[in-house]
Amino acid sequence: MATIKDVAKRAGVSPSTVSRALSGKVPVDKETRERVMEAVRALNYKPNILAKGLKEGRTNTIGLMVPNICNPVFPAVARGVEDVAREHGFTVILCNTDENIEAEKDYVEKLQKRWVDGFIFATAREESQHIFELKEKGFPVVLVVRHMGQAVDAVVIDNYKSSFEAVKYLINTGHRRICIINGDTSLTLYKERFEGYKHALQAAGLPIMPELVLDVAGRDDNGYGAVTAMLKKGILPDAVFATSDPRAIGAIRAIKDCGLSVPGDVSVVGFDDLDISAFLDPPLTTVSQPLYEMGARAARRLIDMINGEKSGQPKVELVEANLVIRKSVKVREH
Amino acid sequence: MATIKDVAKRAGVSPSTVSRALSGKVPVDKETRERVMEAVRALNYKPNILAKGLKEGRTNTIGLMVPNICNPVFPAVARGVEDVAREHGFTVILCNTDENIEAEKDYVEKLQKRWVDGFIFATAREESQHIFELKEKGFPVVLVVRHMGQAVDAVVIDNYKSSFEAVKYLINTGHRRICIINGDTSLTLYKERFEGYKHALQAAGLPIMPELVLDVAGRDDNGYGAVTAMLKKGILPDAVFATSDPRAIGAIRAIKDCGLSVPGDVSVVGFDDLDISAFLDPPLTTVSQPLYEMGARAARRLIDMINGEKSGQPKVELVEANLVIRKSVKVREH
Repeated sequence: MATIKDVAKRAGVSPSTVSRALSGKVPVDKETRERVMEAVRALNYKPNILAKGLKEGRTNTIGLMVPNICNPVFPAVARGVEDVAREHGFTVILCNTDENIEAEKDYVEKLQKRWVDGFIFATAREESQHIFELKEKGFPVVLVVRHMGQAVDAVVIDNYKSSFEAVKYLINTGHRRICIINGDTSLTLYKERFEGYKHALQAAGLPIMPELVLDVAGRDDNGYGAVTAMLKKGILPDAVFATSDPRAIGAIRAIKDCGLSVPGDVSVVGFDDLDISAFLDPPLTTVSQPLYEMGARAARRLIDMINGEKSGQPKVELVEANLVIRKSVKVREH
Repeated sequence: MATIKDVAKRAGVSPSTVSRALSGKVPVDKETRERVMEAVRALNYKPNILAKGLKEGRTNTIGLMVPNICNPVFPAVARGVEDVAREHGFTVILCNTDENIEAEKDYVEKLQKRWVDGFIFATAREESQHIFELKEKGFPVVLVVRHMGQAVDAVVIDNYKSSFEAVKYLINTGHRRICIINGDTSLTLYKERFEGYKHALQAAGLPIMPELVLDVAGRDDNGYGAVTAMLKKGILPDAVFATSDPRAIGAIRAIKDCGLSVPGDVSVVGFDDLDISAFLDPPLTTVSQPLYEMGARAARRLIDMINGEKSGQPKVELVEANLVIRKSVKVREH
């Protein structure tokens, strides 16, 4: 980090001249001022005292942490955050973390130095100790999509219940061999979706069949590979519950590529309700996540905190997610 | 905008006490300091002198203007921008403009006040006078996805050529009645895609049939409605060239809902190559836009400008877009 002395040295002037040139309060001759500004730029000098002053004031800036904006769940969340932020005169810094905790900690530290007023994390994991730390320091923090128990404010759906209802719907429409394509189970939300699946089967007296439980953590498999491998082994479910719409799209493609039909041979239920999901073949029955609304609510909550209008215990807010019934599930008779 | 006097009045202290409390250099008793900080927050006071100083230095922040991050073209662009920005110690402020020039101008003005170092616009339109003005003021500006002639630096694909090649491919595979679903033709990129379509037909001695030219500007029609209406009127193309993948998805759904098959009855070519496009039914033949790369190059260019490493005439950089052939086009014999 360059100091005022470094700037002075490079510009060939005294530190107090640098200070005068930067303050703008006292006239400094044009040529000297230009030398100073050149040195400030070249050394990327940030006047500490200014930074400190601003830090004590406010910048009306929010840091938004997402795993990857290219995952189609997050654009709508980001849009909700940004719309509410703008309404309140805030801007949003977009940060992709790729689930890398160290990268995220680094980012958070840098943004705090740049006087961000608060953070929205769509990236919380069990090991996200830095989020607790921010919270404990009294820094405004709200989680969205993923929560961390009751310790930090969050806006999420009830993943357990949504998953339970989706699988119950498959059971009620006559399905008995229900495959789940699950995501990264080190994330609470996928644990909860798996619990919902398990308990819906158990409530109906159906067994959990390990060969029908597919885990596709990571971003290279949307379910296409895992479903293809399962079908090639001769394991044939009568339904697939995909824990995201991209996974449902991958599953449908895999089922069709194995010469089977959806929903004739295998029903498919997704989770997200992306814009395109109604236009797929078949139009996808899926759990509709109110992603925009979740982003908007998280931003409202955070801004209230920043404005000092929120106090008391953290609150985990659950927003409604509903199963949208289209044409990817066939009613089966037994 | 609150002044230091307003803060002083609210806190019941003198302006110089406010100044001392904010500077952190001189001790101020705790209770007074808290009163001042409360007033600073309540009035959203931004110390001008600090802002000015910072403005003359640098904040390592880029403003990224997109029409709507929920349009699946823009997440990849934003990701490319952010990855390169982060590599260079910059952060990215995400702004959605919904094609509203006034909202965008307002945003630009606010961000300049917040000491953004430069802008990347994915929102350029013919009437975007404010972008020229920024450029003329010497403010670092790069366009991406859309350009404004040769006047402003830009990273784009050759929309005319890509569209020409896609339509030529349809002609070479035996199609004669090629429908185009075009976007907002007040945007240069859709004008260019239409020109490419027109000239490919003309080069092959085929007529432009107005009943096969569908315009679906705006975000409510992905082509489903327009294609359905065309087919219901008994107008039957042998191919559809959709100027975005979501429009191709809408067209495929519409064709199938009218009892026709893709590509058996009607071939479909898209434009984008989204992550899911390979998994559609049929897997989509489409123009692959290197969206991430375009975002990354735009960020690199902008950061060079900010660092003063770029000079001379603006440059419009063309990146390669290629037709990816999958299964949504059938070779037809005549």
